[in-house]
Amino acid sequence: MSSSDIFTGELIGTAVLILLGGGVCAAVTLKRSKAQNAGWLAITFGWGFAVLTGAYIGAKSGAHLNPAVTLGLAIDGAVKWSDVPLYIGSQMLGAMIGAGLVWLAYYGQFKAHLTDPELVSTLNPAEGMVDQTATPQAGPVLGIFSTGPEIRNVVQNLVTEIIGTAALVLFILTMGLTKGLATSGTGTLMVALVVVGIGLSLGGPTGYAINPARDLGPRIMHALLPLPNKGGSDWGYSWIPVAGPLIGAALAAGIHKIAF
Amino acid sequence: MSSSDIFTGELIGTAVLILLGGGVCAAVTLKRSKAQNAGWLAITFGWGFAVLTGAYIGAKSGAHLNPAVTLGLAIDGAVKWSDVPLYIGSQMLGAMIGAGLVWLAYYGQFKAHLTDPELVSTLNPAEGMVDQTATPQAGPVLGIFSTGPEIRNVVQNLVTEIIGTAALVLFILTMGLTKGLATSGTGTLMVALVVVGIGLSLGGPTGYAINPARDLGPRIMHALLPLPNKGGSDWGYSWIPVAGPLIGAALAAGIHKIAF
Amino acid sequence: MSSSDIFTGELIGTAVLILLGGGVCAAVTLKRSKAQNAGWLAITFGWGFAVLTGAYIGAKSGAHLNPAVTLGLAIDGAVKWSDVPLYIGSQMLGAMIGAGLVWLAYYGQFKAHLTDPELVSTLNPAEGMVDQTATPQAGPVLGIFSTGPEIRNVVQNLVTEIIGTAALVLFILTMGLTKGLATSGTGTLMVALVVVGIGLSLGGPTGYAINPARDLGPRIMHALLPLPNKGGSDWGYSWIPVAGPLIGAALAAGIHKIAF
Amino acid sequence: MSSSDIFTGELIGTAVLILLGGGVCAAVTLKRSKAQNAGWLAITFGWGFAVLTGAYIGAKSGAHLNPAVTLGLAIDGAVKWSDVPLYIGSQMLGAMIGAGLVWLAYYGQFKAHLTDPELVSTLNPAEGMVDQTATPQAGPVLGIFSTGPEIRNVVQNLVTEIIGTAALVLFILTMGLTKGLATSGTGTLMVALVVVGIGLSLGGPTGYAINPARDLGPRIMHALLPLPNKGGSDWGYSWIPVAGPLIGAALAAGIHKIAF
Repeated sequence: MSSSDIFTGELIGTAVLILLGGGVCAAVTLKRSKAQNAGWLAITFGWGFAVLTGAYIGAKSGAHLNPAVTLGLAIDGAVKWSDVPLYIGSQMLGAMIGAGLVWLAYYGQFKAHLTDPELVSTLNPAEGMVDQTATPQAGPVLGIFSTGPEIRNVVQNLVTEIIGTAALVLFILTMGLTKGLATSGTGTLMVALVVVGIGLSLGGPTGYAINPARDLGPRIMHALLPLPNKGGSDWGYSWIPVAGPLIGAALAAGIHKIAF
Repeated sequence: MSSSDIFTGELIGTAVLILLGGGVCAAVTLKRSKAQNAGWLAITFGWGFAVLTGAYIGAKSGAHLNPAVTLGLAIDGAVKWSDVPLYIGSQMLGAMIGAGLVWLAYYGQFKAHLTDPELVSTLNPAEGMVDQTATPQAGPVLGIFSTGPEIRNVVQNLVTEIIGTAALVLFILTMGLTKGLATSGTGTLMVALVVVGIGLSLGGPTGYAINPARDLGPRIMHALLPLPNKGGSDWGYSWIPVAGPLIGAALAAGIHKIAF
Repeated sequence: MSSSDIFTGELIGTAVLILLGGGVCAAVTLKRSKAQNAGWLAITFGWGFAVLTGAYIGAKSGAHLNPAVTLGLAIDGAVKWSDVPLYIGSQMLGAMIGAGLVWLAYYGQFKAHLTDPELVSTLNPAEGMVDQTATPQAGPVLGIFSTGPEIRNVVQNLVTEIIGTAALVLFILTMGLTKGLATSGTGTLMVALVVVGIGLSLGGPTGYAINPARDLGPRIMHALLPLPNKGGSDWGYSWIPVAGPLIGAALAAGIHKIAF
Repeated sequence: MSSSDIFTGELIGTAVLILLGGGVCAAVTLKRSKAQNAGWLAITFGWGFAVLTGAYIGAKSGAHLNPAVTLGLAIDGAVKWSDVPLYIGSQMLGAMIGAGLVWLAYYGQFKAHLTDPELVSTLNPAEGMVDQTATPQAGPVLGIFSTGPEIRNVVQNLVTEIIGTAALVLFILTMGLTKGLATSGTGTLMVALVVVGIGLSLGGPTGYAINPARDLGPRIMHALLPLPNKGGSDWGYSWIPVAGPLIGAALAAGIHKIAF
């Protein structure tokens, strides 16, 4: 696989993943969206079909779209370690572009939501949401970009992200062995539905980042974009959806080496 | 591909697409429908399975069912430019027939809904909905036929339609490269699920036309059909779900040429 | 195909179809069911996966599970006319067995629901629901067995059933031509999802029988089973979900012959 | 198939099945979960995709993940009787590990939920829930681990579990005959969607265990885990979701032998 294939596939694939994944969060969250309050099932199917779309479009690079998947495959020997930085860099850049596209697609809704007097008073109590004494919750607008925990506790939140990502990466590594699936293209659908399942089942506590690029790229965009009254970007939490998925992927690769 | 195949496939396929797609909008909107208020997830799955059904039935023409897809494939070189007018004409005619079938299937519900005294007063305030000073919203009955924006702004609405259609067409162009999928018939299912995903994620602002025939054909039928108290057909907005998808498709074809 | 294969496949397949299809109606309707009020999307997916399960189990007979499908295939020449009575008879018997199994699986819920004093007063106002002057609605318990219209009008109800069934049968006839699909088994999934789609989009007015055996077999069981306070079986409506689907299937077979 | 393959496949596969299946129950039940009250459709899709994920990961042992499936295949002759104890033992151990992982992933939510003063008063009225005179209901926290009936009646509850499991096992045995499906890997998706369907249609009365390991393993973990105010583990009911599925599987294997 050429460097150009890796760059193009991961960049465009991850951008589409975040466009549709962030998009569904915007759709169900923002005022004056037809999908407002469409519910948790809509969010999880939205992210699953975002994986489906992005993974087909990024097929030429293998469509990892996720540094944790890249790490798992590298440990497993399916990806060269020297290619890992290019994979992850392209994914991060793609994720930032995708978050920017969500902002463009929902420009009017962001504005209507963030300048609504009633919402502003709740969203931005002091200087941001991170340094408060009470358990800080990710505000609805940050939640369109990044994940946040319902109950803030470093160990618990890490554990949840580790378990969710380990299930995903173990699935991907095992599926690679059933050749017919991987070459027929149906495998992408299976991954997409497994992501729906992980969201439904393990998304409750932290919002299932299970992908460092999916969380960090859009969080950077939240900090950069000129959104009024947007509140803080919750940098205090930002390392957990990076570290948790990477640990989970390494764990899955280890289980896979031992057990399969 | 013969002209007769193109005509038949696109005509019947698009008619079925709009029958089921418009049908789900009627089902969740109209009084005395068992599916009233079934929610956004029902609408998006309904449109996705409408694509699935129409695309299989129209397989003999390649089942574009969408002028934006035809344009993308023509730019990409997969369809002859000389066939484009026949494709688009058949799609438009099929879309109008499909909208007529929705009216037949929900005849009683349309009547019950549109002659309900309480609803009439809201639906048809003056002469129609287009020329009002306040931001006009597409009424519930027009919404069964055509899309309309939650926040009316030419640039924003165009951008949203461009982004949504570009994602769809980029997916279709890329998928064409993975031969096994296209020939096995499973590809149609993937397109259907991607349409569910685009609806969930990018349908919030404008209702995701992402298809000029899907919007314009039924809008013409809304103007022609003898529906009482139906309000205006919002012609002022009607060019956006035509121009946006065409621009998006051209953009996707360009990205595809450069990057793939 | 031997007579024994036809009998076994259609009998068991249709029994499973109605067990799961009637089951989801019981699940969302009856008191003290965990799924009560799970909504229209649950009903339509429930029926779709009922088709999936029944069609695989009845694969040895071709799994029509529906007299309208049998008729469409007979007109198309894919099934011998002399086999048609056996197909339809087995489907009817299977549908009755399936409805009986729903009653067994939900025995306690039926009893709790039908002896609830508040519900009884609504369910059984006089002698039955059919001869009333006001538009009679199928009661919630009859609705677990058979379909009923929201607005009672012979022509409208027939038209809706004709359109829905024509879409289904046209899909099945067209899909038969794409050989790879039919032999790979994925075709059954497509049919199941198309049935979800027809339910979402065209089920609003009449509850989408689109299958004479699905409606008439369980209606007979509703009349026979010892359910307390069950109300009438609405025989006045019962011919519409038989005639409508058969006309729709014939229409689809005609369109298919002319256009494909 | 080697003993080591059976042990590894069933252990890890069933652990993942229960992690995701129990996970979705935790997600929709517990306070401070983002998915709280996501509804019955979320639960049934969550369990279906849990089957999908677990079955791929456990593919090397054939991925029964369910003693009832193992029994059905043994009667049918597809599995050696001498392998049955290892299958079932590995499934039980895997189910217990999976339930432990749910507890880890939702640790904070369990604590917040079970120490909520208002909920505690409802959850744990006396010493447990089993010996009460009034019909005892499985409490919300036990419901994350095991199933429980809405209406407690030995015969009715057994019948419902028998019917649901018979449908599942009959599907699996029949599908085995359509070779293309089983070898292409798509068969796993079909099983997953059939499990969604059985949940939607037959889950109302008892919560569809249809798998002895799925119910008993987590119930043991409910008894062992240090959850505050957790109430009883309802051992009086525990034999029904073991016996019912085994009887149902034997019944399905019998029908399969006679009819196919």
